[in-house]
This record gives sequence, C-alpha cells and structure tokens, in this order.
Amino acid sequence: MASLVNASQFEVVAIWTILGIAILGLAYALFLRAEVVRKEKGTSKMQEVWNAIRLGADAYLNRQLKTILPLIAVLTVVLFFSVYIVPPTEEALARFPQFSPDQVRVVIGIGRAVAFILGASFSLLVGQFGMRTAVQGSVRVAAASRKSFGEALKIAYRSGTITGMLTDGLGLLGGTVIFMIFGIAAPDALLGFGFGGTLLALFMRVGGGIYTKAADVGADLVGKVEAGIPEDDPRNAAVVADLVGDNVGDCAGMAADIFESYEVTIVSGLILGLALMSITHELKWIVFPLLVRGIGVLSSIIGTYLVKGKKEERRGNAMTAINKGFYTSAGISIVSFLFLAVFYMHEWRAFLSVGVGILLAILIDEVTKYFTDTHHKPVKDIASASRTGSATLILRGLAVGFEASVWQILVIAATILAAVIIYWGQPVTFVLYGVAMTGIGMLTLTGNNVAMDSYGPIVDNANGIGEMAHLEPESRQVLADMDAVGNTTKAITKGVAIGSAVIAAVSLFGSFLTDVAKVQAQMGVPEALRLMTTGIRVSDPRVFIGMLVGGAIPWLFSSLTINSVARAAALIVEEVRRQFKIPGLLEGKVSPDYKQAVGICTIAAQKELVGLALIAVLTPLIIGMLLQVEALGGFLAGAILSGQLLAVFMATSGGAWDNAKKTIEDGLYGGKGSEPHKASVVGDTVGDPLKDTAGPALNPMIKVINLVSLLAAPILIQYKTSDPGVIAAVVICVILVAGAIVFSKRGGFKKAKEESEAKF
Amino acid sequence: MASLVNASQFEVVAIWTILGIAILGLAYALFLRAEVVRKEKGTSKMQEVWNAIRLGADAYLNRQLKTILPLIAVLTVVLFFSVYIVPPTEEALARFPQFSPDQVRVVIGIGRAVAFILGASFSLLVGQFGMRTAVQGSVRVAAASRKSFGEALKIAYRSGTITGMLTDGLGLLGGTVIFMIFGIAAPDALLGFGFGGTLLALFMRVGGGIYTKAADVGADLVGKVEAGIPEDDPRNAAVVADLVGDNVGDCAGMAADIFESYEVTIVSGLILGLALMSITHELKWIVFPLLVRGIGVLSSIIGTYLVKGKKEERRGNAMTAINKGFYTSAGISIVSFLFLAVFYMHEWRAFLSVGVGILLAILIDEVTKYFTDTHHKPVKDIASASRTGSATLILRGLAVGFEASVWQILVIAATILAAVIIYWGQPVTFVLYGVAMTGIGMLTLTGNNVAMDSYGPIVDNANGIGEMAHLEPESRQVLADMDAVGNTTKAITKGVAIGSAVIAAVSLFGSFLTDVAKVQAQMGVPEALRLMTTGIRVSDPRVFIGMLVGGAIPWLFSSLTINSVARAAALIVEEVRRQFKIPGLLEGKVSPDYKQAVGICTIAAQKELVGLALIAVLTPLIIGMLLQVEALGGFLAGAILSGQLLAVFMATSGGAWDNAKKTIEDGLYGGKGSEPHKASVVGDTVGDPLKDTAGPALNPMIKVINLVSLLAAPILIQYKTSDPGVIAAVVICVILVAGAIVFSKRGGFKKAKEESEAKF
Repeated sequence: MASLVNASQFEVVAIWTILGIAILGLAYALFLRAEVVRKEKGTSKMQEVWNAIRLGADAYLNRQLKTILPLIAVLTVVLFFSVYIVPPTEEALARFPQFSPDQVRVVIGIGRAVAFILGASFSLLVGQFGMRTAVQGSVRVAAASRKSFGEALKIAYRSGTITGMLTDGLGLLGGTVIFMIFGIAAPDALLGFGFGGTLLALFMRVGGGIYTKAADVGADLVGKVEAGIPEDDPRNAAVVADLVGDNVGDCAGMAADIFESYEVTIVSGLILGLALMSITHELKWIVFPLLVRGIGVLSSIIGTYLVKGKKEERRGNAMTAINKGFYTSAGISIVSFLFLAVFYMHEWRAFLSVGVGILLAILIDEVTKYFTDTHHKPVKDIASASRTGSATLILRGLAVGFEASVWQILVIAATILAAVIIYWGQPVTFVLYGVAMTGIGMLTLTGNNVAMDSYGPIVDNANGIGEMAHLEPESRQVLADMDAVGNTTKAITKGVAIGSAVIAAVSLFGSFLTDVAKVQAQMGVPEALRLMTTGIRVSDPRVFIGMLVGGAIPWLFSSLTINSVARAAALIVEEVRRQFKIPGLLEGKVSPDYKQAVGICTIAAQKELVGLALIAVLTPLIIGMLLQVEALGGFLAGAILSGQLLAVFMATSGGAWDNAKKTIEDGLYGGKGSEPHKASVVGDTVGDPLKDTAGPALNPMIKVINLVSLLAAPILIQYKTSDPGVIAAVVICVILVAGAIVFSKRGGFKKAKEESEAKF
Repeated sequence: MASLVNASQFEVVAIWTILGIAILGLAYALFLRAEVVRKEKGTSKMQEVWNAIRLGADAYLNRQLKTILPLIAVLTVVLFFSVYIVPPTEEALARFPQFSPDQVRVVIGIGRAVAFILGASFSLLVGQFGMRTAVQGSVRVAAASRKSFGEALKIAYRSGTITGMLTDGLGLLGGTVIFMIFGIAAPDALLGFGFGGTLLALFMRVGGGIYTKAADVGADLVGKVEAGIPEDDPRNAAVVADLVGDNVGDCAGMAADIFESYEVTIVSGLILGLALMSITHELKWIVFPLLVRGIGVLSSIIGTYLVKGKKEERRGNAMTAINKGFYTSAGISIVSFLFLAVFYMHEWRAFLSVGVGILLAILIDEVTKYFTDTHHKPVKDIASASRTGSATLILRGLAVGFEASVWQILVIAATILAAVIIYWGQPVTFVLYGVAMTGIGMLTLTGNNVAMDSYGPIVDNANGIGEMAHLEPESRQVLADMDAVGNTTKAITKGVAIGSAVIAAVSLFGSFLTDVAKVQAQMGVPEALRLMTTGIRVSDPRVFIGMLVGGAIPWLFSSLTINSVARAAALIVEEVRRQFKIPGLLEGKVSPDYKQAVGICTIAAQKELVGLALIAVLTPLIIGMLLQVEALGGFLAGAILSGQLLAVFMATSGGAWDNAKKTIEDGLYGGKGSEPHKASVVGDTVGDPLKDTAGPALNPMIKVINLVSLLAAPILIQYKTSDPGVIAAVVICVILVAGAIVFSKRGGFKKAKEESEAKF
C-alpha cells in the first residue's frame, strides 16, 4: 500500500476489509460444502448411478488437466521471459524503489507468471470444485426429494451456491492481493491473472461444451429418434455420459466462464482506474470497483442463505424462493452503492455506471426471455411452424436468433452510450472506465447468478438419478418441477454470461488503448503518433483488414466446434447402436456398458482443445506482427462485433428451438410422437451444439484474444514488420494456426475411438 | 470536357470512343434480341405453359413498379432539395463558370435528381427487359431442343447475353455521360446515379428473392414432401409460380444486383479518381477506369458471340462452349490492359490493381466451388451426415457455411492488402483508388457473367416447359443436361456478385472518407479535425457504438426476409393443399388454377419492400444525426463486415445443402425416397431462402447504406445533435424504422391472401 499516492486511512482499512470479505466468501463456500456433504445419499441403486456419474466426471477432469498442463507450462515460461523484451514501466520502478531496473524486471516477470498460474488455478478450481460439489449435491437432492421439497430445494441451491461463492471469493481475492502487492505496477501482473483465468475458462467451456452435446445429441439421435425410448432411459448406453455432460458443460464450463468475466472486469476496471489515477491523482477510482465487488460478495452471502423451502412442504415453488434471495441481495447492494457514492466517492457518475450495469443485466434478461421462453411470440411462431415440417421450424428459429442478436447488441450499444453521456465532456478514459464499471455492476450478484446456474445441472442430474433409480412417483414429480425451474435459471445465466463477456471485452479493448499509449510514451513516441491520440482508424486500410480478419475468427471457431460435436455424436450413435444389438439389453435384462460412451466423450472433448487455444492465442499475434498494433485494435473490434452477434444468435435460436419442442411435448399440435413433435426434435438437436458448445465458447475466446493483444502490444511496438525475426515469427505462427485448423477439421476421432476402446 | 484540366487529344477521343462502345454494347443487345425473337416457339401446349409464365412475370413487374414508384418520386424530390442545404462545391462552381452560385445549385440539384432517376430506370430496365427476354428465350430453347443441342444452347446463351450486354452498356453509358456533362463536378450527380441503381436493385433482389423462394419452398413442401409427386409436376398448383420465380429471382434480381455493383464501382472509381486528380493534376486516374470498362464491353461482345454449339449436334457440352467465350474475353481484356499500362498510364500500379481484381474473381470462384460443389469434402460430409438424419445434416451445413465465410473474407482482406502493397508509401487515397480499380477489374467481364447467370433460369424454365408439355425423351435429356450446367453458372455468378458487392462497398467507404473531408475543408474545418486526418476511430466510444449498430443491420434484414419467405410459403402450402382436394386434380383430369399461387407470391413479394427500404435508408441517417459523421463511418464499417460474413455463410450453406441433396438424388445412400434423401430435402428447403433471398438481399443493402451515407454526410456535417430540428428528425426516423420493423414482422399476409383472392 506504501506505493499508492494519497491513500487515506479509510482506503487502507477498506482494502484490508475487502480482502477479509473475499476470505469470508470462501469460508462460506466451505461451510456450505460441509453442510451438503453431511446429508444422506439415498438408496444403493441411487448411489450406484451417482457413482457412475462421479467416476465419469473425475475421469474427464483428470484427462483435461493432463491435456492442458503442457501448454500452461509453456505459456508460464513465455510470460516470464516476455518482460525481458520490454523495459520496466515507470510505475514498476516507482513501486519497487529498493530494486535496480534489472531486479524490477525479474520481480515483474515472476509476478506475471505467478499471477497467470493463479488465474488459471482459480478458474480450474472453480470449475472442478464446483462440479464435484454439484455431483455430490445431486444424489442428496434426489434422496431428499423423497421426504421434503423444502429440503431438496435447499440442498440443490446450496450446492450451487458453493460454486457461486468460490467464483466470488477467488475472483475478489486474486484481484485484491495482486493490487496490494503491486500497487500502481499492478497492470503487469493483473494481465497475467486475467489471461490465466480466461484461457482455462476457454478450455473448460470448449471441452465441456463438446462433451455435453456429443453425449446429448448422440443419446437423443439413437435413443429418442431411432429406438423410440424416453430420455434418461437406463437401456441407453450414452445416458450416463449425458448426465456427466450436464455437469461438465453447464456446471464446470459455465462457472469457469463467469469466473473469468468476473475476473476480467476487475482487471480492466483496475487498469482503467489506474489510468484515471494518473490523470486525477485520486485513489478512489481503484478502490471503488474493489468496494463494489466486496459489497456484492457480502450481499450474495446474505441473499443466497435465505433461499430455502419449508422443511415440511411436499410441493412448492422453487423460482419464488430463488428470486427472494436474488432481490434481497440486489436491494442490499444498491443501498450500499448509494452510501458509497455519497460518503466516499462524493459524486454520482461511478454510481450511475454501476447502476447501468444492473439495469443492463435486467434488460438482457428480458430480451432473452422474450425470444426464448414459451409465453411469447417467437417460440410460439417456431412451434407453429412445426406443422409444415422441420425445415420451416428451423427457418423460423434462425430468423428468431438473428433478430435477437440485433436487440441484444442494441442494448449493449445503449449501455456504452450511457457511459458516453454519464462522462460527457470528459476524456475518453473516463468513458472507458464507465464501461468497465458497468461490467462490474452487471456482475455484482455473481454469487447468486452462479448458484442459480449450477442449480440447473444439479436438479437435472437429481432428476436423472430419480429416473434411473426408479424413485416413487411423488418424489419424481418434485424433481421434475425443480428441473423445469432449472431450465429457466440456466437460460437467465446464459444471457448474463454473454452480455458480461462483451462488456468485459469492450473494457479490455479500452485498456488496450490506454496501455499501448503508455508504452509508446515510455518509448518516446511523439504524442501525436500515440494510439490514444490517433485512435484505431478503420479508415486506414490496414486496420480495416485487421477488422475483417478479427470478424472472421468467431465464425472459424464456431465452425470447428460444431463440427467436433457432430463428429463425436456420430461416434456415440455407433456405440449405442452397437450395444442395442447385445441380446437382452433392449428388454432390460442386461445393463449397457456406460463406460464406453463416457470414454468416447472424454477423449473427443480433449482432442481439439489445444488446436482451438492456439488459434485464439496466435491470430492476434500474427495480425499485430504483420500489420502493427493499430490493425490489432481493428482486429479486436471486429472480433467483439462479430463474436457478440454470432454468440447471441446461436444461444437464442438454440434456446427457442428447445422450448418450442417443450411446448409441443406439453400437448400442443398433437404432443409427443406427432409429426410436429418430430420436427421440433430436429430443431432442438440442431440447436443443442449452437447454444451449449459453439455459442458459449465465444465468450472466453473473445477475451483470450483481447488479453493476448494486451500482453503482446508492448512487445509488438518495439519491432517492425520488416525485421527478419518478425517475418520468421509470422511464418511460424501461420504454420501453427494452419496446422491447428487442419487438425481440428480432421479431428482424428478414429484414433479417439481406438484409444477409448483400449482404455475402458 | 472543357472543364477538365490537361485533357490530351488522346483522352478526348478516348472518352468519345468509350461512349461509342457503350452504345455499341446496347446495339448488340438489341441485335441479339431480334435474333432470338425470330426463332420458333414450339407446340401450342408449350406456348400455353409459356404464356402462363409470361403473364405471371408481367403481373409481378407491373405490381412492383406500382409499389415503388411513390418512394422513388419522394426520393427524387428530396435529392433535388438536398442541394439547398449544402453550398455548391468549388468544383461545381469551376465547372459552370457561366452560372451564379444559386444557378449552379439548381443545375447540380437537377443533375442529381435526373441521375437518380436514370440510375433507377437503368436498373429497372436491365431487370425487366432482361427477364422478359429470358422468358421469351426459354420457350424457344425448349422448341429448339427438339432438333439440335447446338441451336438450343445458342438461343439460351444469347438470350442471357442480352441482359449481360444491357448491364454493360447501360452501366458504362450512364457513368460516361454524367462524367462528360459534369466533369470535375461529377461526384454530385454520380452519387444520385449510384443510389438510384442500388435502390432499385434492392427492390428487385428482395422482391424477387421472396417471390421465388415462397413459390419454391411452398411447392416443394406440399408437392415433393407431402404428396410425393415430382418437381415441376403439372398437378402442383404452385408450379407456374415456381417457374416465374426463377425468372423473377435469378434473372431480374441477379441482373439488377450485378448492374448495381457495376455502376457503383465506376461511381466510386470516378470519385476516387477525381480525388487523385486534385492531388496529381493528371486526368488519367479518371480516364483509366472508363477505358478499362470500355475494353471489357468490347471483349464481352466478342467472347459472348463465340458461344454456340454445332447446329447438327444432338448432344454436347454446354460448359465447354461457355468457358471458351469467357476465356476469349478474358484474354482480350488482359492484353488490352497491358497496352493501356504501357502506352497510356506509363505505370504498372493501376494495371496491377485491375489484375488483382481478375485474380480475386477467380479465387472467390474457387473457394465457392470448393465449399459448394459435389466433388469436394464439404458437400460430401454434409451428404454423409444425412445418414444420421436432418439435424446432423443441417449442423454440418452450418459449419460449412461458417467456415466458407472465413475464407472468403480472408480473400477480400488479401485483396485490400494487395492494394496497400501496390501503393506502398502513397497517401491513403491511392490505396482506396487501388481497391476501387480491383472492383473494376473484377467486373470487367460482366457481360459474360450476367449471360452465364441468366442462362441458368432460361434453361431451368425451358426444362420446366419441356416437362409440363411432355416433350419427347431425347429433347428432355438435352434440356436436363443444359439445366445441370445452369446450376454451376448460377453458383459462379453468385460468388462474383457477393465478392464485388463487398469490394464496391469498401470503395464507397473510401469515397465517404474523401468526400466528407472535402466538404469539411470547404466549411472551414481545420485540417487536423477533418475526417481524412482524424480517420474513423473505433476507439472513440461513439464510433464503436456506430459499428455495433451497423453490424446489427444485416442480421435484422436477414431475419425479416427469412420470415417473409416462411410466411408466404405457408400461404402457398395452404393453397396447394386446398387445390389437391379438388376432385380429379390429383388424377390429372382437372388442371389446377395456377393464377392463385402466382397472385399470392406477387403480393407477398411486394408487401415488405418499402419497409425494408426504409430501414436501409433511415438507419444511417439516425446514426449520423445522433452520433455525428465519424460514427456513421463506424456504422458503415460494421455493416460491411457483418454483411459480408452473413451473406457468404447463407449463400454457401444453402448451396452446399442443395448439392448434397443432388448427390443423394444421384444414387448415394439409397437415392431418392430413402431416409437420407428426406433429410437432405429438409436441408435444401432450409437453405433455399438463405441462399436466394436473405443472402443476396444483403449485397444491394450494404451499398444503399453506403450511398445514403455519402449523400447525407455533407448535410450532417452542418448540424449538431443538439439542434431541435435534428432531434425532431431523429425521432421521426426512429418511429418510421420501428414502424417498418413491426410492419415487416406482422407481414399482414392475411390481407395479402384476401387481396390476391379478390384479384385472381
């Protein structure tokens, strides 16, 4: 803290308090976990199913760790040595006056490498720990459903809250500790922290997304469509893989994704806050976002603790209970923010920006609901189109998704406009800070949001366990009711995840600008030529080229991930078909071999991770080296624009088809088994990889690109395209990316199949 | 010519020669028409079918004219009065020294309004005349097929060439005449000319696209899928509408679209050429693009005339003959360009840019072929996915389309990079000029391209007439062979149309920059603040907002057009179903009432034209007024980026599904009637509106947006957002756009149905 200018007594106390709150959040998570684990696990049949899921989930996580560790190791080394190309910043020298410039370099290098590992580990921890707890929770929810709705709801929500509070606690802890150690030199280390988190989130998202949808689509195609047996039927060899997939995708993937947004918004908030501090010499721009986050964690603890049903109830409304907790947290937060504005900030603008963030979360939620829930015109239109077959149903769904992406991007644009208006007449750094605060505001209640989201796969799994363990009808009904609510809460979180990803990416884009300009200043680039002055001019043909290429990346990514799912699902179809031919299996006399399908999904999900990560990491470097740093800015803008449009389109179309199918299954147009129902199943199957694999993968991808650019920019500025070393580096990167694309397209899944057969 | 500086003797002669070539091109078109019309029209049964198509086509064109005339009238008046807000440019005053500034204003106003009408009329003429000739040609092709393949091919290709040469001749004539009259003041009038052409093309594209796919999808859904009768079966009440649709969409729509690209590239080429002239004081920058165009027209005349088969042949290869003509034209052009470079330009750069254009056309063609033709992996993968049902087939198709858009945009980016490298070290205006010349080069052989494209619907219709008039098997085979080639030529032109649209849009974007800067200079804006100096900075939050909104527009447009097709197709399904219930119809004893379906399509296609045009015209105005002219630049960049990605995705996925279906129909995976075939029909039906309605509509839309921005920019610069008049205008525009969206979404097709019932 010594290194910070003008830190008031209050501010010093405040920062230590924030650290305390972060630890409190983690303690609360551990407390909840201890509570959940104590609950009973039900019948031996239930435990058998649960054990299969647990083993499958563990196998996936272990395998994934093995796949990504080498890349993490390489990147850690690269990050450490990257500081040797750029001279230490003035801030770094000022922060560590006791060291020589060379020593400062080592300190910053170690800081960045350690922060990277920290970010990656936290992200991994949130995903893995959260998912394991969810798996633990689901069997206990199923057991509790036999006695009481209230008890089942409480276990389900609290299991989810564990992940939520881990996200909150670790995100806040990391940001605060780095800030406390590095002070004004924090950006260097913060970028490593953010990069580690997003990269891991990318892995968890892509891996989880491919796993869950390969299993789901494969199981449905051969089970529901071909053999005509219901979902979660124990005779289907892919059914355990499907249940594992729910955890791997919705729980681990989503938690890591939101953790990463949570982390990145604080990273960009602190970087922009430091930029403002260098203008106004006030510490408050940095302390404010940390305080907002701290308040968010506290109110999430209180709000989530309130969610429970009455113990004696046999039926009840889960949504009401969850909402009660959410609104309590929201109320506490807003009132506290008001206090902050009046008594600490002595101004309204930062408060307004945070408020816009909360409003944005609500608006995005409403737009998502309008386009995807069953009560509004879009889904009704799609369902109605099922009467002329699957083609018209799919066309309607595409149109709905296209339109939703328009409105969502207008909401985002309005948010940025709000920042422009709030900071009218101020330098652009203020506006960018405003956007970052909007992101912070939007993610205030991350604890509640992740809890709501994790609740989804937990009750889904509990429901599946209930089905497979043949529980009594009454408790099955309790579980089905809770599951229906889970679909809604998952959809809401998905909207928040996409929206916050874009806002976070825009703030990072803003940090890119201030950061590059700072390095340029240090290198003696005249002010008129610095990026902050020239701006990123798409009217420059090179920047325009950067924008075009950046815009293409999300499409490439989506194409590759959709293909992966399609390929892996085809393997599952073959496997289930093969097992259906085993005598006695379809009659229920022989149990299928669930492990085979689990093995296929596990390996398929890992195969393409490294290739996709290489594309995300190397393309910005290629553009930056080939066309310079301004074109790289254009690249980022293009990637944000087209990533947002594509992500919302895929999430919305997928969600809308899913719900159109549900309304038909509820009896519309002939209900289950009718021709319209078959058409709607096709729509749902098309939508599945869009909404759960390709779409969500874009959130962390956009941010990986932004963070790589931020990390690389100071290095890129030092070199010219014509330097032989740069040309060589470009050639190597292009070859690597081309190789990654070819590898991803080939898939090599035949080998995956063989490997899995050898293994299980 | 008097107004031009340093016009050499050669240049004066050259420009008059170019005018002569334009007229020669038109004369050639009329000569071909006379030749085609003289041919015999076949049996009375054939003429009966043909008459039904002709009446349907005429009804559509008349109805469309009525719909759009009011809007054209309003815009003409607005364009005339727009000059009263902006003072006449220095160039305009210099061009007409005999007039007072007020008189010059009137002259420019009249010039712009007349040029607008001219552009619109030419576009309309190309579409209408071309389509009518195609209809005339098709029955004669069918008649000739009974005697000789060579004769049938000649008639088909020459009928198409009529449209091709009209496109060439009118495009060159308009640009040259305006340039001859207005000289250095030409940009003012040229913008009007370009706007008229693009707006009409938008109408023809959207109207034609909705018409053709509503008929096609409707006829297929109820005929092929429900009733199980073949395509073009006379018992299907929508079959005539489907044949009319081929002309309306592929012929009139595509011709107007390419005409418009042809026109817009010359408009932006001349504007940027004038900008260069004001730097270098050399006329050659303007004369060069006109000369290139003139050479293109001449070589198209020669090349297209060579396309014919031997008269006595009964079978033959149409593709070989068409290619022979194409390569002849290409050879003549390239050699002539070399002469131009050496003896007139005395430099290589402009030649290289034009050459890159030709290369670009070839590359785009190759990429399109790779992703959509039946010999390569993408279509094979899609076809193979049909074995696990329509869902996996559609997923694979989406992935293929996504990927294709990546490679196509990389090709475009490489093209712009080529311009950067060719004009390395020169001011940005040179690079923009290079991009414009690339567009000119790409469209050199427009005569051949449009001929190839129109050939498609002509032989498609001839084939349909053959089917319905029960021609003898041998001539049916001749027609079927020619039709297969038509599918390839159509696909090639579609690639060129999209590629040239983007290049044209990028050149317009370049003109936007130079034009705004010029007006700013005239208004006394200091140089440091002019757009040419500041550039369009996406790092400015307002520009970023503009980019986000611009990126959303293509998605909105596509959503609305897909919905229109889905709605209109549903009406066709109802109508055909109704007629199937007429006793004796399915047994072939009673003829269906074709007029009803034609009427539904005609009215459905017109309903949404004005709404969609309003969105394209008003959104750039809203952004420009609200966020100023730089944000408008961001808006354009966003629209170009996301429009290109989306257009290629939709065109490619649609084409690939279509061909996957064809390979299955040729016997793969069980052939016609098998489960994989049914899956592939679903894919084809989904792809139809994407590739023939929504995708192509984006080409003219992007350019309408660009031209509106170019026209409005000088006016926007004069006002501030806070002016009460501007606020009022924004409110009105927002209300109009909102109304247009609501109207488009509601569709009001129930009324369309009633109206058509009252009419037919």
